[in-house]
Amino acid sequence: MDLVAHLRTALPLEAILTDPAVTASYANDMASFCEAGAPAAVVLPRTVEQVQHVMRTATALRVPVVPQGARTGLSGGANAVDGCVVLSLVKMDRVLEIDPVERIAVVEPGVVNADLSRAVAEQGLYYPPDPSSWEQCTIGGNIGTASGGLCCVKYGVTAEYVLGLDVVLADGRLLRCGRRTAKGVAGYDLTRLFVGSEGSLGIVVRAVLALKPAPPQQLALAAEFPSVAAACEAVCEIMARGHAPALLELMDSTSVRAVNSMANMGLPESTAALLLVAFDTPEPARDLAAVGELARAAGATEVVPADTPAESELLLRARRMTLPALERLRPATMIDDVCVPRGKLAAMMEGTAAIADKHGLVIGVCAHAGDGNTHPVVCFDPADEDEARRARESFDEIMALGLELGGTITGEHGVGVLKKQWLERELGPVGTEIQQAVKAVFDPLGLLNPGKVLDTRGA
Amino acid sequence: MDLVAHLRTALPLEAILTDPAVTASYANDMASFCEAGAPAAVVLPRTVEQVQHVMRTATALRVPVVPQGARTGLSGGANAVDGCVVLSLVKMDRVLEIDPVERIAVVEPGVVNADLSRAVAEQGLYYPPDPSSWEQCTIGGNIGTASGGLCCVKYGVTAEYVLGLDVVLADGRLLRCGRRTAKGVAGYDLTRLFVGSEGSLGIVVRAVLALKPAPPQQLALAAEFPSVAAACEAVCEIMARGHAPALLELMDSTSVRAVNSMANMGLPESTAALLLVAFDTPEPARDLAAVGELARAAGATEVVPADTPAESELLLRARRMTLPALERLRPATMIDDVCVPRGKLAAMMEGTAAIADKHGLVIGVCAHAGDGNTHPVVCFDPADEDEARRARESFDEIMALGLELGGTITGEHGVGVLKKQWLERELGPVGTEIQQAVKAVFDPLGLLNPGKVLDTRGA
Repeated sequence: MDLVAHLRTALPLEAILTDPAVTASYANDMASFCEAGAPAAVVLPRTVEQVQHVMRTATALRVPVVPQGARTGLSGGANAVDGCVVLSLVKMDRVLEIDPVERIAVVEPGVVNADLSRAVAEQGLYYPPDPSSWEQCTIGGNIGTASGGLCCVKYGVTAEYVLGLDVVLADGRLLRCGRRTAKGVAGYDLTRLFVGSEGSLGIVVRAVLALKPAPPQQLALAAEFPSVAAACEAVCEIMARGHAPALLELMDSTSVRAVNSMANMGLPESTAALLLVAFDTPEPARDLAAVGELARAAGATEVVPADTPAESELLLRARRMTLPALERLRPATMIDDVCVPRGKLAAMMEGTAAIADKHGLVIGVCAHAGDGNTHPVVCFDPADEDEARRARESFDEIMALGLELGGTITGEHGVGVLKKQWLERELGPVGTEIQQAVKAVFDPLGLLNPGKVLDTRGA
Repeated sequence: MDLVAHLRTALPLEAILTDPAVTASYANDMASFCEAGAPAAVVLPRTVEQVQHVMRTATALRVPVVPQGARTGLSGGANAVDGCVVLSLVKMDRVLEIDPVERIAVVEPGVVNADLSRAVAEQGLYYPPDPSSWEQCTIGGNIGTASGGLCCVKYGVTAEYVLGLDVVLADGRLLRCGRRTAKGVAGYDLTRLFVGSEGSLGIVVRAVLALKPAPPQQLALAAEFPSVAAACEAVCEIMARGHAPALLELMDSTSVRAVNSMANMGLPESTAALLLVAFDTPEPARDLAAVGELARAAGATEVVPADTPAESELLLRARRMTLPALERLRPATMIDDVCVPRGKLAAMMEGTAAIADKHGLVIGVCAHAGDGNTHPVVCFDPADEDEARRARESFDEIMALGLELGGTITGEHGVGVLKKQWLERELGPVGTEIQQAVKAVFDPLGLLNPGKVLDTRGA
């Protein structure tokens, strides 16, 4: 019996797509420079049992499986491989439970981040992780990459909100791990092992997520600096003085000018760095005033605090428009995701500017500055072979610089195929070997999202 | 060459203890009912290289190794096995770095929790995890059991503060995992796998810990309830209304009477449950007032808010004295650690009281109520064979009840030897098999803390 016939024994017809024109549209996530193969089929299960059937079939026939959410990833982690089953979890999109006493939500993996956020908000609760793709991306995808967002400086990444998981293993068995209690230390923490594993260890089919009480509405401030170094000094001071901003973002001059040119926002073209800070504390105005003073002391030429949440939104618009604005500069972009210690943020940003100069490229940087997490956006024309080569080289040099500064190659986007070689460099030989051995425990046949995160150890 | 001669090739004489009278004193942690063997030697290394030498030696000679901190654990996780090397990390006790900008501390495993807490406080920082043994217990031990404490309801357990680890593997190789940046998702999260693994996967020799800004001093409130159910209703209301107490503790009548009898604190003997709440928010008095109202609405007969931190400390003294007070009731105690969903706390506490009645035993319960984490303290006389048997039975029935209510057998104390059979029951066959396979990756020869957490899979 062939693959599709096998799948059809326990899946309805409409859950299996095989038209090559259709399956090809599932081949890629949003990363540049990442290879993608042609799927043999795309499967859209609606139940745990159907997922188990897919994995049993894949194991029986030795067919690779690539799990997918909304394919908004930026590392090629969801890209198809030739002959694979693409296992799209988007139809498993139910919020099963929201419990204000336990402060948890129980969800299927295909729930869209924004849908969950709105559903819990109706009960006075808050699900913090807010990747910029939050209107599209799914919780399953967020768990796969341990996604971050703007709020991480105060609330942390997705990993910190995953209490328990139901996971279909490579052979189709169902593993329940973690808990729905506030605490629990029974056995090894397999839950956290699955978070950020990019579907390479198992298929998440259900998640228990921790929620927070809804905070007060945030109030923001914008500060203009004459140099990146001065802005980064302000960032370090804000964190060293014990402030707890809910957002602490930095835009370099390339980003500021790109936003101006797109939206005519009237940001001064002379601004070398624009710092955005927001608080969702009981007294945000007081906290903003204190941070405004620190910004001025570090050399800010202008400090603009918002008086209302609506004004705050206006200030933050520039940050939200950065990526679309940079995308207008050249036909394509590659978004890096290097995270360094806060104290090295200035060196990272200045070094990135030097790399852009050296290669004659436009690289705009926006950063989750409070976390030291930079997103250098390399703008280039893929049709120009030399420019594309320089773009790829600059991308790698940015990661090398990040490692040199004591950072990591990925703060929140994951490894996928884009950074696989770099992961080995970050982990070193012992770390790589152990990670490969862990992978082999969960996926001895190498069928789960092969070629992602790490190369599988030879049998 | 025998074990000790082998160890001496790279360890100074004074770092190796072999006198049986001395090594016997390292055989146990603080758990009751847990078997312990006779160590062949106790080794007290001061450097990472010495730890590597111990593990290389152990692997070469196939000698089991039991890592130890301060041996304040309550599950037998640090108990020796016959012929083992006890690897005590207490001499590796340096705080290597405290960085207010990065909000991290880098420490060796033997640092005492309270010493670290005081050192970071001097720089305006806060290391939240506060097990009740904090003046003795070590950070390495805390990492081994993913320890909790009173502050978890707001700040979480040790696991949430471990960013990166250096670990000596079973074969002596050094593995560096995790990061020192605020974020990072490069590869599988091995750091979290080691946290809570009770020394059964590797020897932690260095940790990068996350710190928080020091919060304002806390202010507490005590509320007396005519029933456990009413107190638990107050707990649920407090959490459902979005409050963020830094402490939310519950004492049952047995605990209250024991404390009264030890310290004559004047707590009314009629109190069925005493609830203690504290806030370290900017306006604790306002938060306490709101919580006081909720307590009254749930049936509190008396609500006593503190006006000063000193008064707060007085209120919290009863809670801190609970364990010593209960220990006076009978010659020995066994402390359970069942964590249930908050909504099941009343059922858990009432069920525990019924178990005590059934067995004719004194069981006092104090609970980290905000987390649903109960500590039933079974008081008994080990010399009375029948009472000891009933104590053990009640201990098991309490865990069975916890699982039945959707909870876990251990919220913060770990599995050790005490709860090993119960762990399999909680994890189920698939979970147990996967955890055994993970263990085999790190410890293929079964030398690391054998017989703890899980039974190793047959070779």
